[in-house]
Amino acid sequence: MPQHKTSPDSPIGIFDSGIGGLTVVKAVQAALPAERIIYFGDTARVPYGPKSQAAIRRYAREDTEILMKHQPKMIIVACNTVSALALDVVEEAAGQIPVIGVLKAGAELASRRTRSGRIGVIGTQATIGSNAYACAIQEENGSLEVISKACPLFVPLAEEGFIDHDATMLVAEEYLSPLVSKGIDTLVLGCTHYPILKGMIGRIAGPGIDIIDSAEAVAGKARELLSEQGMLNPGHGQAMPHLLVSDLPQKFRELYRLFMGTELPDVELVGV
Amino acid sequence: MPQHKTSPDSPIGIFDSGIGGLTVVKAVQAALPAERIIYFGDTARVPYGPKSQAAIRRYAREDTEILMKHQPKMIIVACNTVSALALDVVEEAAGQIPVIGVLKAGAELASRRTRSGRIGVIGTQATIGSNAYACAIQEENGSLEVISKACPLFVPLAEEGFIDHDATMLVAEEYLSPLVSKGIDTLVLGCTHYPILKGMIGRIAGPGIDIIDSAEAVAGKARELLSEQGMLNPGHGQAMPHLLVSDLPQKFRELYRLFMGTELPDVELVGV
Repeated sequence: MPQHKTSPDSPIGIFDSGIGGLTVVKAVQAALPAERIIYFGDTARVPYGPKSQAAIRRYAREDTEILMKHQPKMIIVACNTVSALALDVVEEAAGQIPVIGVLKAGAELASRRTRSGRIGVIGTQATIGSNAYACAIQEENGSLEVISKACPLFVPLAEEGFIDHDATMLVAEEYLSPLVSKGIDTLVLGCTHYPILKGMIGRIAGPGIDIIDSAEAVAGKARELLSEQGMLNPGHGQAMPHLLVSDLPQKFRELYRLFMGTELPDVELVGV
Repeated sequence: MPQHKTSPDSPIGIFDSGIGGLTVVKAVQAALPAERIIYFGDTARVPYGPKSQAAIRRYAREDTEILMKHQPKMIIVACNTVSALALDVVEEAAGQIPVIGVLKAGAELASRRTRSGRIGVIGTQATIGSNAYACAIQEENGSLEVISKACPLFVPLAEEGFIDHDATMLVAEEYLSPLVSKGIDTLVLGCTHYPILKGMIGRIAGPGIDIIDSAEAVAGKARELLSEQGMLNPGHGQAMPHLLVSDLPQKFRELYRLFMGTELPDVELVGV
């Protein structure tokens, strides 16, 4: 089992299938401005969503091992698909380092927020097909009702910059109307890309539905856990995240700007 | 350099980044009903379109090596991205076996068909960004004008089954209007998924624009070449294609039906 000494100055390791997990980096930076962040995006094998469970579990182990080389004090699984299907694999590869996933964090926050007891969850095919959000929410409170819907077009629409486009509106109406008509009062964005479409999703859902961003939820949980363990970084100021990727896709610079709102820093290419 | 004895009974090897190349399998079956086909779809690493040239060239070599184990008499590169960026890599890995790519076949057919001399080409980001269709068309005839447009949302829309959806119509209008307004009379579908949206694309383009399906173009070219070389299979009847994939994605059965219109036969999983 991997072991290394960690200290409050150790980085937080975050990984995702691609660059969608940058929404988690942004949320962690906002919640924990003094922390050092090392991010791995598996851009050579993105997307995980449509792939088999066997492939997803293999990738999850390899992604964790890449981060472990940088001796993190915590691993955040920004990938909903991995959180749903392979969190145990990450925990095993991380040894004694705490692991938190977007899925459980989002599920916990949604169960605390709902008043009607009807929660909607949207995500990739793999995340929704695994039923993992529904299980995690019902583990919190067995009387909650979960209505799920896979929304495979949201990721390409967000990446293509069709943020306020009529086509995205039509797709979103089709995806969300079955959830809205079933009377949900809370909607979990169960995919790291979806915060980019949060404005449109919120307009279609309407003012009565509380949107839960799993990225913010997991950042809050990371702060809680590090504080409990006395592992908060006492430093000041904010370093740029250290970025690792398995491929340098052609639109990388543009996508980084879309997710982070800032220019791309240096990135390191790692083999997978 | 790999060498093996081929005969008219040897299979035709076809590969693509995923299952989009099944449109080429279908076109080859129609043009050459007596041929045995072995198809490799790199479903573990799909899509190639947004990835780097270095990654695409490595995948192209590995994909060819997988087919070469089955001693094909010809390799058809169904992937436009590989045809654009890595055909030389495939040719090297294939040794003396002839290699034909969808790109050159589509470019040749378009240059023969156009009357106005203005040809539109649509494809993935990588294919269009490479400018390879424009180069191939101008190699045929230097006076032809090529207007290109990347249409990244067409693949996810096709795979999600949004074939006749208003959202797809809005996206297609946005993508195609700059081509139509520039007076093209020929439009090359430079991505294996696009034939699925051919009806909608044809309606938006209008009756004055001839749609070139690169899958049909490459199948015609394969027939020509095998006939010239006396390598046409003299057999009768049609065998099911032999399918190899690098992952079994969750919607595989459904997607196979979308592309082929028949039920999924047995598939063989190969490691990459």
